[in-house]
Amino acid sequence: MELVTLTTDFGYQDSYVAEMKGVMLGINPKARLVDLSHGIKAQNIKEAAYMLFLAYRYFPKGTIHVVVVDPGVGSERRILLVKTKKFYFVAPDNGVLTYILNAERGAIVRQVTNKKYFRKNVSSTFHGRDIMAPVAAYLTREQIFTKVGSILSDPERFLTPNPVKTKGQLFGEVIYVDHFGNIVTNFTHAVLGEYTIGEITIKKRTINGIVPTYSSVQKNELLATYGSSGFLEISVNCGSAQALINASLGDKIAIQVAKR
Amino acid sequence: MELVTLTTDFGYQDSYVAEMKGVMLGINPKARLVDLSHGIKAQNIKEAAYMLFLAYRYFPKGTIHVVVVDPGVGSERRILLVKTKKFYFVAPDNGVLTYILNAERGAIVRQVTNKKYFRKNVSSTFHGRDIMAPVAAYLTREQIFTKVGSILSDPERFLTPNPVKTKGQLFGEVIYVDHFGNIVTNFTHAVLGEYTIGEITIKKRTINGIVPTYSSVQKNELLATYGSSGFLEISVNCGSAQALINASLGDKIAIQVAKR
Amino acid sequence: MELVTLTTDFGYQDSYVAEMKGVMLGINPKARLVDLSHGIKAQNIKEAAYMLFLAYRYFPKGTIHVVVVDPGVGSERRILLVKTKKFYFVAPDNGVLTYILNAERGAIVRQVTNKKYFRKNVSSTFHGRDIMAPVAAYLTREQIFTKVGSILSDPERFLTPNPVKTKGQLFGEVIYVDHFGNIVTNFTHAVLGEYTIGEITIKKRTINGIVPTYSSVQKNELLATYGSSGFLEISVNCGSAQALINASLGDKIAIQVAKR
Repeated sequence: MELVTLTTDFGYQDSYVAEMKGVMLGINPKARLVDLSHGIKAQNIKEAAYMLFLAYRYFPKGTIHVVVVDPGVGSERRILLVKTKKFYFVAPDNGVLTYILNAERGAIVRQVTNKKYFRKNVSSTFHGRDIMAPVAAYLTREQIFTKVGSILSDPERFLTPNPVKTKGQLFGEVIYVDHFGNIVTNFTHAVLGEYTIGEITIKKRTINGIVPTYSSVQKNELLATYGSSGFLEISVNCGSAQALINASLGDKIAIQVAKR
Repeated sequence: MELVTLTTDFGYQDSYVAEMKGVMLGINPKARLVDLSHGIKAQNIKEAAYMLFLAYRYFPKGTIHVVVVDPGVGSERRILLVKTKKFYFVAPDNGVLTYILNAERGAIVRQVTNKKYFRKNVSSTFHGRDIMAPVAAYLTREQIFTKVGSILSDPERFLTPNPVKTKGQLFGEVIYVDHFGNIVTNFTHAVLGEYTIGEITIKKRTINGIVPTYSSVQKNELLATYGSSGFLEISVNCGSAQALINASLGDKIAIQVAKR
Repeated sequence: MELVTLTTDFGYQDSYVAEMKGVMLGINPKARLVDLSHGIKAQNIKEAAYMLFLAYRYFPKGTIHVVVVDPGVGSERRILLVKTKKFYFVAPDNGVLTYILNAERGAIVRQVTNKKYFRKNVSSTFHGRDIMAPVAAYLTREQIFTKVGSILSDPERFLTPNPVKTKGQLFGEVIYVDHFGNIVTNFTHAVLGEYTIGEITIKKRTINGIVPTYSSVQKNELLATYGSSGFLEISVNCGSAQALINASLGDKIAIQVAKR
C-alpha cells in the first residue's frame, strides 16, 4: 500500500503542504497522497483528532494517516508512529490520536527517533516536513515499523466527553460544526439506540425526536439525524443549523430518554 | 481510463471529499482523482451545473465526472449515471446536469439502482460517499454502465436562460462571478458573432463593444471580452469587475446590436 | 520524471486549476500533479515569486514548476521555460521567477513560441491552460526543452530587497505573512550568522535576540526564529504574530548587530 493521507492546520494559502508532498515524492515517486483536510483551525488539536476519527475508516487497508497539528514543534514533545489492525498513523504526541487510540484495541505505539528516516536538515519549526513526511514515505516503500524507535506505553490523550445520564435525560455536547452548519454531537446510535427519544434541547431550541434524513422535515426546519459517520447531528433541511443556533464546541445538548 | 473528477459544495474544511476518495481508492487503487471544485456555494445546483459545463470538456476521453451537490439526499430523488460521446457523469437527479444534457446530443441516462455497486452501509445523508463514489470507482475498473440500472427518459432539468432580442438589443443575464471578479454572462460568440456590437449595459454601467483581451484597455478599466470558455465576460484589466458592479446571478445585461 | 507543481492565484472556488489538470492528463495520463498553492493574492507576482522560492527546493530532481500569476495574459508579455540544475520552470515573463533566476546560477531561459506544444485553440485570457499546461505536460513525456523556442537573455526581474547596514543596525523588510500569522523577513542565517544579535524592532515592538524555536518562549509571547526555509520570522508561541503586529509586505524591521 502506498497511500498516505494528510491532515493539517496549514490552510490553503501557504506552500507547507506542498513541501511535505515534495519530500514524500522524492522518497517514493509512486506514493499516493490524499488531502484529508488542511482546514483544521490553527493549533486546534481536538478538532483535528475528531476529523481524523470521522474519516480514517473510509480508507483502504494499509493507508498511512499523517497528522500535523503541532503547536509543540521544536520542544521535547515526542513523535509517534502507531500501527492498528488496518492502518498506520504518524503524528506528534499531543493527544491528536486520542479517539483513534481509544477505539483501536491492540494499537502498537512507537516513538519515532531513528534519524535515518528524517530529512538531513531538520528545521526546529517544521517537523511535519522534515520528520513525519519522510517517515511516512519510507513506510510506503518498506516495512520500517519496528525500526523507527522503541515502543511507548503512555501516549498523550485528552479526556473525551461521554454523554451523562441524569433523571431521564442524557447530557452530551457539541464536538464539531461542519461547513454546511451541521452541528455534530457526541451522541452515537450505540448509546441512544436503547432508548425511546423525546425532546432534544440545544441552546434553548427544542427538537422532537430523531428523523431518518434531512428531507423528513420541511425545508428550513430544524431536525436531529444520525450523520454520515454515526454521530447525532443537529441540522436544517436545505439550510444551516449553525446559522440558527450559533453553537460552540463544548455547548451542552440534552435529550429526554425513556427505556424501551 | 481511470480518471475521475469531483465537483461538490463540501468546501475545504471538512473531511467529506477525502472520505469519497478513500472509498474510491479502496475499490480501485489506481484511480486518478482530480478536484474540479469544492467551492460551490452550499446546495447551489445552478452554480455547480454551470461550473461543470465550463470545465468538463478539458478532460480526456473516458473521464468520469462526479457531482455531489445534493440537497435532496435521503429523499426519493434519483441518482443518475450518464454516458455521452466522450464522458461519464454521476450525479443526483436534481438538474445539476442540465447544461450537459442540453449540449450533448445522444446522451444515455440511467438511474443508478444496483446495490452491488454501493457501499454496504448507505448513510441517509451522504450518498456521494456511499453510492456515487463507489459507482464511479467500479466504472474505472470495468464496464458496468449497462448494469447500474434502467434507462431513464426524464432527467430533471432547469430552464436555462437564453439571450432575448428586442428592438435592436439583446438581453442576457449573469450566470457566474469568478474568484477574480470576472462576471460571466450567458452570451456566447455563437450568438453574438453575427452582429455588430454597440453599447453593453450592466447595472447602469456602459461598455463600448467587445475587446480581444484584458490588456486591450487601460489598467483598472472595465471591458467586455470572451472568457476562456467562450462566454462573454465583464472584467477589469488587472482588477475586479465585481468590486465595481456587485452583480448577482440573474442580473440583466443588455447589448446594442445591428445586423452585419 | 513526471512531476508537475502548480502555483496560481486562481483560488479554490473556480474550475481553472482543474481545467489545467485536465489538459495535462490528456497529454500525459501518468503525469503527477501537485498543488503548490492556489492561494496567491490575485495578480500578486511578488507573493507568488516568494512562495515558489520557499517551496521549489523540496521537490525531487526533474520536477517541473508551473506558475500562473499572469495579469498580462493576452498582451505581448512572453512565456518562459527555464532549466536549472535540478528543475524546470514554466511561467509568464513578468518577474515571477526573479528569486529563482537570482539563486540558480547557470539557468537557461527560453521563450516559449512553438505552437506545436500549445492547445489548438488558444484563449486570449487563459494561457495557463492553453500554453503553459500543455508545454509542461509534453515535457513530462519527452525532452522538448530545446524545441520550445529560442534562448532569451533578458527575462524580467524585479528588484529584491536586501538587508542594509547602518550604524550598528541592519534594516530589512517583511516579505511574506503566512496563514499562522508568522511574519517572514528578508534576513537569512547567511547574513545574520556573522553577528551577535541584539534588539529586533518591528512596528514599535521589540524582541530580544533570536531563539531556536517557538517553545523557547512562554505561550503567547513574541519571538524571532529562523523559519523552516531559513528566513528570520517573527512569531508568537501558540499564537499569531500578525494579530499583534499587523504587518504589511515591505514594512521595515531593524536589528541591532555587533561583530563577533
